[in-house]
Amino acid sequence: MSSDPVLFGIDNLPYGVFSPRDEPGSRRIGVRLGDRVLDAGAAARALGSAHVALWTATSLDPLLAAGRPVWAAVRAEARSWLGDEAHRAAVAPLLHPLDEVTPHLPFTVADYVDFYSSEHHARNVGEIFRPGGDALTPNWKHMPIGYHGRAGSVRVSGAPVVRPLGQRRPAEGAATPAFGPSVRLDIEAEVGFVVGTPSTPGRPVPLTALREHVFGVCLLNDWSARDIQAWEYVPLGPFLGKSFATSVSAWITPLDALDAAWTAPPARDVPPLPYLDDAAGAPGGLDLRLTVLLNGEPVARPPFATMYWTPAQQLAHLTVNGAHLRTGDLFASGTVSGPEEGERGSLLELTWNGERPLRLADGERAFLADGDRVTLTAWAPGPDGGRVGLGEVSGTVQPAPEGA
Amino acid sequence: MSSDPVLFGIDNLPYGVFSPRDEPGSRRIGVRLGDRVLDAGAAARALGSAHVALWTATSLDPLLAAGRPVWAAVRAEARSWLGDEAHRAAVAPLLHPLDEVTPHLPFTVADYVDFYSSEHHARNVGEIFRPGGDALTPNWKHMPIGYHGRAGSVRVSGAPVVRPLGQRRPAEGAATPAFGPSVRLDIEAEVGFVVGTPSTPGRPVPLTALREHVFGVCLLNDWSARDIQAWEYVPLGPFLGKSFATSVSAWITPLDALDAAWTAPPARDVPPLPYLDDAAGAPGGLDLRLTVLLNGEPVARPPFATMYWTPAQQLAHLTVNGAHLRTGDLFASGTVSGPEEGERGSLLELTWNGERPLRLADGERAFLADGDRVTLTAWAPGPDGGRVGLGEVSGTVQPAPEGA
Repeated sequence: MSSDPVLFGIDNLPYGVFSPRDEPGSRRIGVRLGDRVLDAGAAARALGSAHVALWTATSLDPLLAAGRPVWAAVRAEARSWLGDEAHRAAVAPLLHPLDEVTPHLPFTVADYVDFYSSEHHARNVGEIFRPGGDALTPNWKHMPIGYHGRAGSVRVSGAPVVRPLGQRRPAEGAATPAFGPSVRLDIEAEVGFVVGTPSTPGRPVPLTALREHVFGVCLLNDWSARDIQAWEYVPLGPFLGKSFATSVSAWITPLDALDAAWTAPPARDVPPLPYLDDAAGAPGGLDLRLTVLLNGEPVARPPFATMYWTPAQQLAHLTVNGAHLRTGDLFASGTVSGPEEGERGSLLELTWNGERPLRLADGERAFLADGDRVTLTAWAPGPDGGRVGLGEVSGTVQPAPEGA
Repeated sequence: MSSDPVLFGIDNLPYGVFSPRDEPGSRRIGVRLGDRVLDAGAAARALGSAHVALWTATSLDPLLAAGRPVWAAVRAEARSWLGDEAHRAAVAPLLHPLDEVTPHLPFTVADYVDFYSSEHHARNVGEIFRPGGDALTPNWKHMPIGYHGRAGSVRVSGAPVVRPLGQRRPAEGAATPAFGPSVRLDIEAEVGFVVGTPSTPGRPVPLTALREHVFGVCLLNDWSARDIQAWEYVPLGPFLGKSFATSVSAWITPLDALDAAWTAPPARDVPPLPYLDDAAGAPGGLDLRLTVLLNGEPVARPPFATMYWTPAQQLAHLTVNGAHLRTGDLFASGTVSGPEEGERGSLLELTWNGERPLRLADGERAFLADGDRVTLTAWAPGPDGGRVGLGEVSGTVQPAPEGA
């Protein structure tokens, strides 16, 4: 679990919820610095805080709900505790080694929405499944396409992922679908955005309000059973092919730590409708550099800066019909894939639907085998040429239940 | 708000959450009897109960989580309070007239799943949108097709429904989609099932376990903007065309009140896979008779008994991939449409995509106008030839926000 301390320096300070190894039943808010975790509730009590109730909560929910001015004040407190020489002696006993704590899902997921905002990913998927047809559907350049996923299946990094059972398209000539453990289990490397401040029912949230509502960013692996998905998804979209597991990183990086990462989105070749038009200076893209590791070997480096639709556009679209935001809403980018072959965020794309298996130290992989461990990591440009790490999200594939 | 007391007699006793008119900030569990609501927490305190904490909660959440044996015990208590002559004097002051209380959403919605389980509805929609093609997709007879909806948009009967803004398919020859208030606002008359007992992650729930997990039934109107939906739904399914509002009845009818309503589902012309095969006696269909009223006029009488896929099959399918149930999960049947023209549960079908408008007392309707009020009601066979009412779900259409 060691990591480069430069990625988790004083300009980062992501939030999580943990229990010390010797108190597995407890839930404490932690702030990560390097390879250590500050017990923030204990620090608030020891050093004084204007926000003791938020720091001593058992999840980030109250902090998320507290709103942007409080987010800034709380971050300033953490920065002082961990950065000021005067606090060094008091804080030292409150720091736990990262590998001696158990992480927990840091907030209660309200609604989970998954977008499909990488043009490279959408084109790859279109070419794989509809060869010779139009790779993009006619609506794709006019809106960030998305759907609701299963909030109850969102789990923290490290939690196991059981291979799902399900139906597959009938074999040629067969009348009945096949049924059993998925034989095309895949990942989707994504970035998730965590909503803090709710919005008013019936009122769209404008592009420019992103930072009033979104607290921070996580990494997200949208585990996908391609065989189940392919058979079920017409006409109502992905359902059981996705709903068995979605993993998120244990550390939520506040948007305040990503000020140096904003970047211009790709040029839009189709003018967006006014509610999606960010030309006038709404928050744009984010320069996040992802890495996908399969059993420890890097297999892809997806660049988030290449995403066609931005988080601000996703938020504006999600709410334009009057759907309101709740604290804990989670919306994800969709698979991050760049223009190059080594930048694709799914095995579907990396192996071109299994036609070109990856050659790894422990053998070939078209899709995931039982026991495989997938880890996503990422970093972003930080202040003064530094880097801000986005933690990691890992999961190991367990066999499907027996007797199925 | 008057209603036929026979529908809400001692064999029904649905649960809700209300505040008396003079205490709008309070939340109390109520049990409905006829046109009156028992303040159940007050009754538990006055008459004694083994479950005072459940009765005095501010939502049904703790009761849902308590499990089937407690559901039965609590129902027996309510039946005694409201049915035993000995309690009449004590209970009388705890009964509020139904039209003097404000209903609230009675439980916290965890995940909301919407199915598509009426063959008549699926065929009608297929014929309308894909004339000349196969009305049913190849998967339809092999699984209950469904998708996740937006839990945060679920609201109680009576809450307003704001006409959504959104994109529509570009007009012929136009490069840009139209944008504005939906011009094809519709309803879907459905039945919702409320999960009480959670299930284990990674473990499918068998057909036969329906009654261990499902607490009760509500009526549900899945408001739908057909123009938004038609443009967005390929390839990831319905999103903004549905996510602006879903209304549920204020009263949750316990499954224990519907013992006389179980009925054989329609014959299956395609043998279901084993995990969906209910031939061996799993819970089957439910004989619920719905009525759709538009501005008070009945416009359809959808028969729930004609649904191809049953709630037990929906539950088994929903969890076969290892997705687990949480207390408060809500899954809905999909639009209930019978074989006859007057039995269709959406305006899309009743007006055949607007081609044959309904003629009402206040004019023609292809889709909903601002100010229109839609109400769904239903009843089921009860013990001894009686009837069990399923309350009602109502909503009035408000204009889209201005300046859009």
